[in-house]
Amino acid sequence: MAPLAELDRQLRARGIQGLLCHADTERDADLLYLSGFLAPDPFTLLRARGRSLLLVSILEYGRARRESRADRVLCTRDFPVDGKPGGTPAPTVQMLAALLRRERLRRIGVPSAFPYSLGHGLERLGFRLETFDGVKGIRTVKAPREIASIRRAQRATERGMAIARRLVRRRGTTCEAVRRRVDQTLLGLGCEPGHLIVAAGPRSADPHYIGAGPIRPGDPVVCDFFPRLLEERYFADMTRTFVRGRPSPRLREMHGLVLRAQEAAIARVRAGARCRDIHQQVLDIFDEAGVRDLYIHTTGHGLGLEIHEPPRIAENDALLQAGQVVTVEPGLYDPRVGGVRIEDMVLVKRGGGENLTRFPKQLEA
Amino acid sequence: MAPLAELDRQLRARGIQGLLCHADTERDADLLYLSGFLAPDPFTLLRARGRSLLLVSILEYGRARRESRADRVLCTRDFPVDGKPGGTPAPTVQMLAALLRRERLRRIGVPSAFPYSLGHGLERLGFRLETFDGVKGIRTVKAPREIASIRRAQRATERGMAIARRLVRRRGTTCEAVRRRVDQTLLGLGCEPGHLIVAAGPRSADPHYIGAGPIRPGDPVVCDFFPRLLEERYFADMTRTFVRGRPSPRLREMHGLVLRAQEAAIARVRAGARCRDIHQQVLDIFDEAGVRDLYIHTTGHGLGLEIHEPPRIAENDALLQAGQVVTVEPGLYDPRVGGVRIEDMVLVKRGGGENLTRFPKQLEA
Repeated sequence: MAPLAELDRQLRARGIQGLLCHADTERDADLLYLSGFLAPDPFTLLRARGRSLLLVSILEYGRARRESRADRVLCTRDFPVDGKPGGTPAPTVQMLAALLRRERLRRIGVPSAFPYSLGHGLERLGFRLETFDGVKGIRTVKAPREIASIRRAQRATERGMAIARRLVRRRGTTCEAVRRRVDQTLLGLGCEPGHLIVAAGPRSADPHYIGAGPIRPGDPVVCDFFPRLLEERYFADMTRTFVRGRPSPRLREMHGLVLRAQEAAIARVRAGARCRDIHQQVLDIFDEAGVRDLYIHTTGHGLGLEIHEPPRIAENDALLQAGQVVTVEPGLYDPRVGGVRIEDMVLVKRGGGENLTRFPKQLEA
Repeated sequence: MAPLAELDRQLRARGIQGLLCHADTERDADLLYLSGFLAPDPFTLLRARGRSLLLVSILEYGRARRESRADRVLCTRDFPVDGKPGGTPAPTVQMLAALLRRERLRRIGVPSAFPYSLGHGLERLGFRLETFDGVKGIRTVKAPREIASIRRAQRATERGMAIARRLVRRRGTTCEAVRRRVDQTLLGLGCEPGHLIVAAGPRSADPHYIGAGPIRPGDPVVCDFFPRLLEERYFADMTRTFVRGRPSPRLREMHGLVLRAQEAAIARVRAGARCRDIHQQVLDIFDEAGVRDLYIHTTGHGLGLEIHEPPRIAENDALLQAGQVVTVEPGLYDPRVGGVRIEDMVLVKRGGGENLTRFPKQLEA
């Protein structure tokens, strides 16, 4: 079913008359998906009766009419409010209430992240609100156009990874220097940079530590890159762990286990697979090897307009759907040695998964 | 008064026992300010009894203890919840409720942007919630360390603007090429790029249009750059409007008016000045010249960890405070000609404003 038709169906099934979103779309992916309109300041979308209506400031009106995929665009200037500072209800609440009254809607769905102050204000005016997070679910399944964007982001990421690997090989490199160089490359390829982990040595055992300082021979270097296309706004995500020189037997063992777990997990990706089973596959391999306690995160996540989206490849019963794009990224973290993580992005298809990541997984840089 | 002491005073005055935040700090500036902890996934901060407590996942625990400025760091692992999917209350609500009960807090402040679903869930469990946006107000006044960061971001921005001006002078330049080149420069100076408007010709009359296509002689080119320091997370913001070749008399007139309005407005910036009066100064000049209807936004805004913060230099009675940093950015927008905007950043001081922007304002590139 087309995404918007599916959304309307879910709203009807829940008895929700209209879905109300209010956010800026540099930060809110649901609203970006629904509106197709990138704006740095909060604006409003109302989905009701199978149509989408935007309410934007005069500053954005012309652009919203040209660039958004809404059926109608209204201007906040046409919703005068009592602007007394500190007055109740707050101006934005007044405006949203006027819009909802005009459209004769009372039972409203709002996303989980809808601002509490606005939700509470509307409830005090007699509107009935319900949390509705259907958009998040719907946009996990990607259209061909979206998959093409993710592929483009991934090709750029691999170019960056090749540069990182080359730099790790050199003497005297630092984590900061690698990040700087990869960022420049990614930017040149149309990606928003600043989403790079290059963490070396024992501190790489903190999975989100971005890294600093010199890269020493024998150090594991966790390179986790998750850039986003500046225009299309889709993310890619991949991780490799490199070593300059000879890895210690312990590090080599950790890497071997992570690689085995990752490949076994990827082999289980297909439409209809249960997230819990894929995650369990990793746990079983680590359990058997006696390193289960060094695995401190889950196995993967969906991604798209957000870096972390459903489904979570973790202890839950969600079933993968064709068209979802998920990461598979087990890791082992020993505070004395550092971290090892290997991450690919996989497109879920009927018969299996298509690995969107093309990059070797050797430990030696 | 020190910011946190002031915050505690405001909470006491409102009868709020604890301030509860739940967000990721790549997106939420209030929580970044309070926690000093940059994390891509949502975590929890509770400010109560003059102390700050963080609740983070095991993934972030080590880093939060090292990097955050919280007094205590707890791990979500120690707050087991009933994880039944679709269960009520939702797992995060259960966890927050357990935390609040443990700390014996019932009357809770939450920021406006607190997720509606969590707020509603806590209310159903008997907690009393109130919107509290004091942090936003407190962080408008910058400490010397913060002002130093903003200055650093501004120096980088000026380097970028010098490059833009040089490129505009050249034949055959496009908006995209200018943005690409400036982005590379900003990234090399430690700024997160992707916050650039380079809009030429009539479409630059849309203030937020980022621009595309060739730059023709005589076109106004609005260059509005608002990069953020990747590490310190502070923004700068400046705009210049350039022309290659000879500007038309109409464009020259628009530029002259904007410049006069901007300088008159800047001259009014000082601690104690009323925002409305500064904005009115611009309106008066445009009114007198008969171009009032070509001015479609407000005169400026505070900035810091967010690009748009209070105070708004607009029709409101807020008084500027020493230590605030505000933009002053009048503009005129004629759909047949394009836009002209000039923007500086000004530090509010007792006797007047210190212009943090050092860059000429000539129209001719």
